[in-house]
Amino acid sequence: MKDESRDDLIDVNALFLGPKSENRDFFMQMLRFIMNDHADWRICYQPDDSPAFSEAQRSEPRFQATLQRTQQALVELAGRLQLSSVPWFSPRYLGHMNADTLMAANLAYMLTLLYNPNNCAYEGSPATTAMEIEVGRQLARLLGYHPDRAWGHVTSGGTVANYEGLWVARNLKSVPLAVREAVPELVTGRTEWQLLNFSAEQSLDLLDRVKAAGQMDAVRARSARGTGVTAGKLGKILVPQTKHYSWTKAADILGLGQDNLVFIRVDDRFRLDVQHLRETILRLAAEHTPILAVVAVVGTTEEGAIDPVHEVIRLRQELAAQGIWFYLHVDAAYGGYARAMILGADDQPIDLAELPAAFRRHHVFSEPLDWPDPDIYAAFRAMAEADSITIDPHKMGYIPYAAGAVVLKDRRVLELISYFAAYVFEKSEDNPMLLGSYIMEGSKSGAAVASVWTAHQLVPLNITGYGRIIGSSIEGAHRFHDALRTTPPYDFHSRRFRVHPLVRPDFNMVDFAFHEEGNPSLAAMNELNVRLWEKCSYKSGRMYSEDFITSKTALSREEYGESPCRFVRSLGIPEAEWDRLGSVYVLRSCVLTPYLVHQTSFVEYWGNFLRSMSRALQAVV
Amino acid sequence: MKDESRDDLIDVNALFLGPKSENRDFFMQMLRFIMNDHADWRICYQPDDSPAFSEAQRSEPRFQATLQRTQQALVELAGRLQLSSVPWFSPRYLGHMNADTLMAANLAYMLTLLYNPNNCAYEGSPATTAMEIEVGRQLARLLGYHPDRAWGHVTSGGTVANYEGLWVARNLKSVPLAVREAVPELVTGRTEWQLLNFSAEQSLDLLDRVKAAGQMDAVRARSARGTGVTAGKLGKILVPQTKHYSWTKAADILGLGQDNLVFIRVDDRFRLDVQHLRETILRLAAEHTPILAVVAVVGTTEEGAIDPVHEVIRLRQELAAQGIWFYLHVDAAYGGYARAMILGADDQPIDLAELPAAFRRHHVFSEPLDWPDPDIYAAFRAMAEADSITIDPHKMGYIPYAAGAVVLKDRRVLELISYFAAYVFEKSEDNPMLLGSYIMEGSKSGAAVASVWTAHQLVPLNITGYGRIIGSSIEGAHRFHDALRTTPPYDFHSRRFRVHPLVRPDFNMVDFAFHEEGNPSLAAMNELNVRLWEKCSYKSGRMYSEDFITSKTALSREEYGESPCRFVRSLGIPEAEWDRLGSVYVLRSCVLTPYLVHQTSFVEYWGNFLRSMSRALQAVV
Repeated sequence: MKDESRDDLIDVNALFLGPKSENRDFFMQMLRFIMNDHADWRICYQPDDSPAFSEAQRSEPRFQATLQRTQQALVELAGRLQLSSVPWFSPRYLGHMNADTLMAANLAYMLTLLYNPNNCAYEGSPATTAMEIEVGRQLARLLGYHPDRAWGHVTSGGTVANYEGLWVARNLKSVPLAVREAVPELVTGRTEWQLLNFSAEQSLDLLDRVKAAGQMDAVRARSARGTGVTAGKLGKILVPQTKHYSWTKAADILGLGQDNLVFIRVDDRFRLDVQHLRETILRLAAEHTPILAVVAVVGTTEEGAIDPVHEVIRLRQELAAQGIWFYLHVDAAYGGYARAMILGADDQPIDLAELPAAFRRHHVFSEPLDWPDPDIYAAFRAMAEADSITIDPHKMGYIPYAAGAVVLKDRRVLELISYFAAYVFEKSEDNPMLLGSYIMEGSKSGAAVASVWTAHQLVPLNITGYGRIIGSSIEGAHRFHDALRTTPPYDFHSRRFRVHPLVRPDFNMVDFAFHEEGNPSLAAMNELNVRLWEKCSYKSGRMYSEDFITSKTALSREEYGESPCRFVRSLGIPEAEWDRLGSVYVLRSCVLTPYLVHQTSFVEYWGNFLRSMSRALQAVV
Repeated sequence: MKDESRDDLIDVNALFLGPKSENRDFFMQMLRFIMNDHADWRICYQPDDSPAFSEAQRSEPRFQATLQRTQQALVELAGRLQLSSVPWFSPRYLGHMNADTLMAANLAYMLTLLYNPNNCAYEGSPATTAMEIEVGRQLARLLGYHPDRAWGHVTSGGTVANYEGLWVARNLKSVPLAVREAVPELVTGRTEWQLLNFSAEQSLDLLDRVKAAGQMDAVRARSARGTGVTAGKLGKILVPQTKHYSWTKAADILGLGQDNLVFIRVDDRFRLDVQHLRETILRLAAEHTPILAVVAVVGTTEEGAIDPVHEVIRLRQELAAQGIWFYLHVDAAYGGYARAMILGADDQPIDLAELPAAFRRHHVFSEPLDWPDPDIYAAFRAMAEADSITIDPHKMGYIPYAAGAVVLKDRRVLELISYFAAYVFEKSEDNPMLLGSYIMEGSKSGAAVASVWTAHQLVPLNITGYGRIIGSSIEGAHRFHDALRTTPPYDFHSRRFRVHPLVRPDFNMVDFAFHEEGNPSLAAMNELNVRLWEKCSYKSGRMYSEDFITSKTALSREEYGESPCRFVRSLGIPEAEWDRLGSVYVLRSCVLTPYLVHQTSFVEYWGNFLRSMSRALQAVV
């Protein structure tokens, strides 16, 4: 990452196949090159081995028929894909967290697929296991961790990464109690409450002493992995109301129970309400209920909101003085790569005051943009203090599925989830990177890892690389938001409709709703937006013929408390309507495409959007 | 699967790229076709949209520099892969469960990668979610389940599939107790022991009554998912000593605790000892400890042994009369696809007596082979009685990573692990196949699913398709075994070495060890085999230059009890040596390659093997 040429700016236009297959020739040329490279590799292995079959066998009718059937199967697949796939590649697609993926990542995936490495064990993947270790270090650096002390690896997705973070938190929480049973002299004088409030560092230092005493296996056997969970004993898991549903699944799967999830309110920008977090923790502590973990989200699934991680860290420091400690996992599945926006070409954080100049110097935005606000900036900086982080290459890394990742701040926790006996774990020459033994998954695709690794070779994880792609996406989202906010109303049959963005985006997701001027009914407004969504989504039939594709979300009291009420009131709908209905539908657009920044293309697509929404409105009202 | 043409025999030679890239021209032709198909699809979407950038922008130096850097990154990747990848494709590779993968599967994966569907939600994958449902039904049929009542889906691997099976077993086990709390009138008169021994069917029928009473959510909240696990309460998990380490991880992750794993002995063919299983269950029942689940393995990881599933089923019927019931999960990650060997062109089981004729008719073996023995046959038949099964397309499905699968016999269990409230689950129009809400994982690759689907389109899951590929592999393994057994000794410097297969393979894995005639020391024999392995494995440097590549395994008392002793004794090593050392090293060859069946190629590779082992022996003794 350090060589000079890497500071050269990449050209975003040259990174993707493109909405009109603009880079098709290059793509095909590279594809030929890599496929021939692989085919030659086979031929050159043991050159004197005979072919598996003769030319005569090739001309047998059954051989030809099998090739023909292969072709038929591919034609059928190609047809099905063309008919019912989602045109992520187009700037007209503004729905979920999808866009075109990097050519380099796709080509790397395709090539590596033919070598078919399995990163479960080094023996099956000498090349790509090494790449996974590198990627883990790169992501650690991106997130502000020390690459030598942290540990990161690729998972099949953010859900599994979240499980792994909570798995570590659970087993770590059980350590001091396990030490009390197995080697009580190491924790003499400590109350149970103190043991349940050991910091990660305290617990891991304690484990170092346990290891020195030769009691590691005894302690592991008495930790949650050995004894199993006793429901509630290890405390509550605090997650913001904006939570991804993977947390509900995680509490189930890890045996902790959904009863032990506590939901923390979000503010009217849909960010974690740290005051409510503080009150909740103090209330639980007063009942002597420990906190197993707190989850903060960097890029919520439905709003793209960025929780104030820095305030959570400050709260943790404050509470530590009162003998209360909690594990912090940051779910940055969506927003994690955006930390590249605040890192300079040397991968070091840039001060907030210097960011605008750095953005200009590296052409991050095509025109000045007031982003990030100080809270977002501080949240990104503070991620480095979290105990573990989920970050998905297959979201803002512009990598094809399936590639999530989890990064743990202190790699010593691995011994708590490792399959191996403690002594094996240390002898790495006996066990050269048997990844499957200290991650949740087993067999895993080396091709997915090679895809991420190649993308990282090409696109630096700082302002000169991903910062530029993600910057384009953030700029596009803000342009879209501003255009929504200022566009004139639609008038039909003496009815007037306006579009209202939910909030100014923290990141690159824009939620918005159409509303008829003077309509006092939240139910009517909800129905309008659901019907619009039905016109501009997979619901409306073949997506391929859609003018514009979006997604939707319902902000309900059950999930969001009273946070959506301000938006409802701002539309002139009486608060009583919200009280009664408790749910507001909004359309939801993730602007991952990097193509909405140039004045010309934004104007073209914005015009398309207006016409398309106008047609949709006319059709539904 | 029903049309007549499918009964035509496929030609195995036409299915793979081949050890010498024999099918390179066809592969490249198909690749061009599918890639152009995709590129055209982009162009034809909204034909009047402008390109994302102009031709002038293409000639900018930064654009060209970025393309060049892309190429450099790919060249670097290609180089790394060539240097340190494992030549799975070659019949010289006889190590782990790897071989060449189907061209159709690779091409399907590559094409679908460009569409990049995410099978977490239908909205992101209309084409490939439908394929996943189809694949689930196909696998259910292969395993003898009723496709309309079962539920199967693709996972990232067998490990996750095993987790999902145990997750279902755990939550199901907790249901009758949850009903006793929430709707006690439905289980009046039942003792706790009876409730803990409800069969899956009884529990699911009970849930149907719970649902009719409108109490589904209340019961789910009191099941393990809601309350969490209370260690030990739900009983023990019984797994054979040959277990894959994913079970140790599963007990940890699911909060059940490794203390609650009980290992069942295996016999001297490394198959589950059902007598010991019976004794263990009766002993636990006498202590009123319930059985959460029993795991049987079809294709053990280290020996390829096939457990007597039929005897486990018979035992379950026997114990049911005594009020004891257990959930049965079959881990057929490795061996599951081999059930195709006993299914006719109509996908129905063929009687054992008629199998040899069917094998002849469909050219399954190139010369008669005495396989399967009646126990193996019966085990395959009995899989249909298990409650859930793991089966990995990326093993014997000849599919690239990552594609495992789990199939559940009774899809009603889904409500126990589903994220959705009970009422949502029923309204499928509100929730069209949001897979992520009732599987363990979240985001998942639609390309992996398309790869499996396309392979299944081409290769029927019966004797006419996979039966022929897997038949070649089984035949190759048995030839290899027979040749090892009968080959003359190696003589060097008046020392004589013989090679001894561990057992006759149940499937397509051959374990074997070299032994010096007259050597009485097990330690010396172990050292010999470890050193041979070091000469013929990733340990010996660049795999690409290896003559022959194998893997190894240690059969230790800790894991296998006394089962390996017979083998040690048969070599003339005193039993006391085994008693003292308790571990024997063997070389381990999975013969997945379909190319060791033709007389000519077998003779060529066998000659290579003999020469290569002779060189290795000379180098190490």
